[in-house]
Amino acid sequence: MLYVLTGNGKGKTTSALGTALRSLGHGQRVVIIQFLKNWDSSGEVLFFKDLGLGVELHRFGREDRRFVNPIRLEKIDFELAEKAMRMAYLVLEKQPDLLILDEINVALKFELLKLETVLEFLDRVPKGTHVLFTGRGAHSEIINRADLVTEMKEIKHPYQKGLKAQKGLDY
Amino acid sequence: MLYVLTGNGKGKTTSALGTALRSLGHGQRVVIIQFLKNWDSSGEVLFFKDLGLGVELHRFGREDRRFVNPIRLEKIDFELAEKAMRMAYLVLEKQPDLLILDEINVALKFELLKLETVLEFLDRVPKGTHVLFTGRGAHSEIINRADLVTEMKEIKHPYQKGLKAQKGLDY
Repeated sequence: MLYVLTGNGKGKTTSALGTALRSLGHGQRVVIIQFLKNWDSSGEVLFFKDLGLGVELHRFGREDRRFVNPIRLEKIDFELAEKAMRMAYLVLEKQPDLLILDEINVALKFELLKLETVLEFLDRVPKGTHVLFTGRGAHSEIINRADLVTEMKEIKHPYQKGLKAQKGLDY
Repeated sequence: MLYVLTGNGKGKTTSALGTALRSLGHGQRVVIIQFLKNWDSSGEVLFFKDLGLGVELHRFGREDRRFVNPIRLEKIDFELAEKAMRMAYLVLEKQPDLLILDEINVALKFELLKLETVLEFLDRVPKGTHVLFTGRGAHSEIINRADLVTEMKEIKHPYQKGLKAQKGLDY
C-alpha cells in the first residue's frame, strides 16, 4: 500500500507519526526517513531517542537552516535528498512493515529528486511493506500510484494571527 | 490553543496521536479521551498500554459495536458521551499540557452532546492546556472558536476499491 498525505494544512507529519505509533503498538517494524528536516529539538526525535523503541529515524535535512529555499537550491540540498533516497533503498532490504518518507513530496516538488527515481523505488517495495509519503504538493503521478490520498487543507491557522509555533503541538 | 482536525479523509486521529508523541517527546503531560471508540485491538491502545508512558487514555465507546448508528442512537450512547465529558472536566484539574478529545466532533454532530456544554467546557480550559478536537463534521461554532483548523479531505481511499482496513495503518 502507498499512502500519501499532502495539502497545505497542518497534520501531515503528525499523522505519519501517529501511524508509526499504531504500527509499533502491533509490534511492527517502522522506519522513518525525513527529507529536508534536521531540526533536532523536534518532539518526535526526542521521543524516539528517549524511548529506544527500535524505530529507525534517519534525517537528511541541513543542520544550518530550518527551511530550504526552493529558488536558491544548493549542491548540498541535492546531495542530502540523494542520500535520503539511498537510505530508503537500503532500508527496503530489511522489509519493514511501515516505511515513512516524510516530506518526500516536497523534495520532488523542488526537483531535488527525479520522478523516475521515486517511481522506480516504488516498484521495488516488497509487498509486506506499507509506504507513507508526506509533504505538500504531491506529484500527480504519485497520486495516481497511491492507494490512499488525503489532502490536509488549511482552514484556519494561528500563524495567520501572527502567533508562534507551539512546543509539543507544532514541533 | 484549540486545534480542530476535521473532514472525511484519513489522518485525523493519527495526527492527534502524532501530536501526542511530539508533546511526550518534550516531556509534557498528555491526556487522550476517545468518544465513540472502544475497540481494544487498535494500535494506539496497545502502544500506550505496553509502554507505560504515563499517557492517560480513556475510552468511552460501546464495547459491543465498532460504529454507532446516528439514526438509531440508544440511551447508552448518550450516557457514554456524558461520561466522556465528565472525564474531560475532571482531567482539567490536572492541567495537562495537551488534552485530546478524539471524535468529539462526531459526538456533537450526533447530538450526543450539547453545543453549550462543549463551549462551556472550552471556557474552563486553563491557559497552559492545549486542546485538540478530532472528528468529521466539526460544528461551525467550534471552528469559529478554534485557533487552527485542518480539513482532512479524502482524495482517494482503498475502501473505494473494496480493500480492507490494514493493521498498523488503519487501526
